Amino acid sequence: MNRYLPTSPYRGTRDFLPPEMSVRQQVFGRLYEVIESYGFGRYDGPILESLEIYETKSSQEIVDRQLYTLTDRGGRRLALRPEMTPSVARIIAANANRLQFPVRWYSHPNCHRYERPQRGRVREHWQINADIFGSESINCEIEIFELVHDMMAAIGATREMYVLRTNDRVLLGGILTTIVGITPDQLRGVSALIDRWEKYPREKLVTDATEIGLTENQFTRLEIALKSGENVLGELPSDVRQQSQLARILDSTARDLVTFDPLIVRGFDYYTSTVFEVFDRDPVNSRSLFGGGRYSDLVGLFSDQPIPGIGFGMGDVTLLDFLESRGLLPKPRPEADVVVIPIQQDLQSAARAIAQRLRHTGLRVTTPFETRKLGKEISRADKVGARVVVIIGADDWKSGQVVVRHLTTGEQQTTPQEAVPDIVNRLIDDQRPTEC
Amino acid sequence: MNRYLPTSPYRGTRDFLPPEMSVRQQVFGRLYEVIESYGFGRYDGPILESLEIYETKSSQEIVDRQLYTLTDRGGRRLALRPEMTPSVARIIAANANRLQFPVRWYSHPNCHRYERPQRGRVREHWQINADIFGSESINCEIEIFELVHDMMAAIGATREMYVLRTNDRVLLGGILTTIVGITPDQLRGVSALIDRWEKYPREKLVTDATEIGLTENQFTRLEIALKSGENVLGELPSDVRQQSQLARILDSTARDLVTFDPLIVRGFDYYTSTVFEVFDRDPVNSRSLFGGGRYSDLVGLFSDQPIPGIGFGMGDVTLLDFLESRGLLPKPRPEADVVVIPIQQDLQSAARAIAQRLRHTGLRVTTPFETRKLGKEISRADKVGARVVVIIGADDWKSGQVVVRHLTTGEQQTTPQEAVPDIVNRLIDDQRPTEC
Repeated sequence: MNRYLPTSPYRGTRDFLPPEMSVRQQVFGRLYEVIESYGFGRYDGPILESLEIYETKSSQEIVDRQLYTLTDRGGRRLALRPEMTPSVARIIAANANRLQFPVRWYSHPNCHRYERPQRGRVREHWQINADIFGSESINCEIEIFELVHDMMAAIGATREMYVLRTNDRVLLGGILTTIVGITPDQLRGVSALIDRWEKYPREKLVTDATEIGLTENQFTRLEIALKSGENVLGELPSDVRQQSQLARILDSTARDLVTFDPLIVRGFDYYTSTVFEVFDRDPVNSRSLFGGGRYSDLVGLFSDQPIPGIGFGMGDVTLLDFLESRGLLPKPRPEADVVVIPIQQDLQSAARAIAQRLRHTGLRVTTPFETRKLGKEISRADKVGARVVVIIGADDWKSGQVVVRHLTTGEQQTTPQEAVPDIVNRLIDDQRPTEC
Repeated sequence: MNRYLPTSPYRGTRDFLPPEMSVRQQVFGRLYEVIESYGFGRYDGPILESLEIYETKSSQEIVDRQLYTLTDRGGRRLALRPEMTPSVARIIAANANRLQFPVRWYSHPNCHRYERPQRGRVREHWQINADIFGSESINCEIEIFELVHDMMAAIGATREMYVLRTNDRVLLGGILTTIVGITPDQLRGVSALIDRWEKYPREKLVTDATEIGLTENQFTRLEIALKSGENVLGELPSDVRQQSQLARILDSTARDLVTFDPLIVRGFDYYTSTVFEVFDRDPVNSRSLFGGGRYSDLVGLFSDQPIPGIGFGMGDVTLLDFLESRGLLPKPRPEADVVVIPIQQDLQSAARAIAQRLRHTGLRVTTPFETRKLGKEISRADKVGARVVVIIGADDWKSGQVVVRHLTTGEQQTTPQEAVPDIVNRLIDDQRPTEC
């Protein structure tokens, strides 16, 4: 009989201990820096949202099977946000009158979906969202694509490691109606089929296509169109091409930013034209890392002002898996740079004073709570990654001195107390590894 | 009839737009830095926890009236964490075998309580938590107190603005049993009464005390004891004093860090000895800003390893209210340092290239999505707080040049494209306000 409460986190959620958290913070910190270098301002919103904002637009799969819902003590029906886009559309609508459009916004919320936990899928994930609101210009698409590449570069990924595949639902609609010859009411079903294209065996795709009402001949034409990449665009009537933002980008100097791919659809109902997804190029691990698109009507759920949006959400799980498999994860930061060790209990306050002075120079400094053998403390300091220890002995302290010991070289020197901040900082600067 | 969805956030929760978020990030960023300078490592955990961890230990008020609960699609009973301490105790217990104690951990989670929204109270708040696990030494208390003062200093608060009031439940128990003469079974009721002492009128306190079973004479002795501050300690038997960590601190050189106050109790059941609260000293706005204490048994809910803890939680609402009322809030950062303006559409990619080069020098740089009148763009750049604009004209560009204009002075110069990063950085450095 176990009288203790279980210690594991709720299924599909994660605890992050300091070493892992340090890795995450370094990765996300670099991403925040790049996003802010593009002038994106960070926002945030509540994790609880009214249920109805997901019932109206979102993916049907999320609402039916993945939403965490609850009713508060006042009877309000709420959901834990499964994604950030409906929330940011709400916030934009609420503040439209005092914002100067276009605006660039980003956030890093935790989102919940009731999924069967498996590699790459959890129930609580963290997702960086970056969006531009208030402009239909293709320059938004181009900026988002440049931002994606800069973010990837900032965490060490080269263009050889990943590919930015894009499509345009307007173009896809044109392909499907003019080239494959489907009817407008089959569009949604066929789009959903394309979304599953790379995950299902061909035979299942054929069955599904037949169910939607595609003839064998139409299926063959669909198959050819989807495999032909950019060539399919040449077969489209010019009026269909001209309606597409993406087609104009593919005709511009920005075309090298992306690879056109009619297979990219994205599961969300709210995307209206450009959609894109970043894929790992590793043939054995080829998967979508993250994606986004343009949504022209989402803010319209909340307001009569038509405010278009474009953006993406980058989830933590697939991104960190990718970095790990590519050997790109940074090392955790050590928990302290310096440990100040008093050799007996009544020197604790002396040690605290020295530690305090070192902290004010920007160093991370600890002092032990209990007085133990000096050797033990030094080896513990070494183990946590500290590079310097300052040893406070009774006689030294009385004569205004302390011992500074470099843990890597083992060299040590007795120095006046006032000189400690300078000496310690110099030792640490000499040791600082060059940034790679 | 309104066919739009409501745009306000769920009652008692908040949207943070970029200017407000920027203020929050600066305040929290300074606090993180101080906490990390003490060697605390950041951790995180899920917002959903199993309901039972709150049912066992927490405040009864939270469980009965304030908890957000839900049942997942698999029938598990869950709660949105109302506070972080039970979660961190769980995580510590789960990883006890691979941690080297003592450990210093911090986090900044969002927590939910179903409260009636009012000044200082919301339903979703963000709380910085800092805790030390695995040591009973009074040096933990002292480090936590020093950390609190350093955190307050980092956000501009001086010791004249706030007071750190502490008590010890062991001492309080001693005062109540030996000086006031209550029985051990009255201890919990009287402690709860003391917790309300400063909020209720005297008459109500008398009635409540009578209900618990205190005589008139006992109430008078209680009243005197609570008002006498540190003097009451002199009346305690020395064996009661010796059991108290706090009494030893009050006898040490660290005594100036705190003010002893028998009125400090804290509402949580899990505190076992030291408790403390930071109060605004402003007489018209005297309120608790945040607090914490020592809890020796909480990890014991999850494990047979006795791992004591001490720490505090600092909520965002009262802290930011305090900073605002004291005029200590930082200004929001401007959304961009530099705006690169192409004067016609076909110079967009030139503008993007210049912007990119500037970003790589660490600046935040935007380019407009639409080509509008130059004057309009310059005035918009000025409004968002940019200090420099770079203007890309067709003839200049062809001859390898651009115009750099300083927005504060209005001065502008035509310069070669390669010199832009240097010139812009120099202009911005000259203007950078000295840190205060």
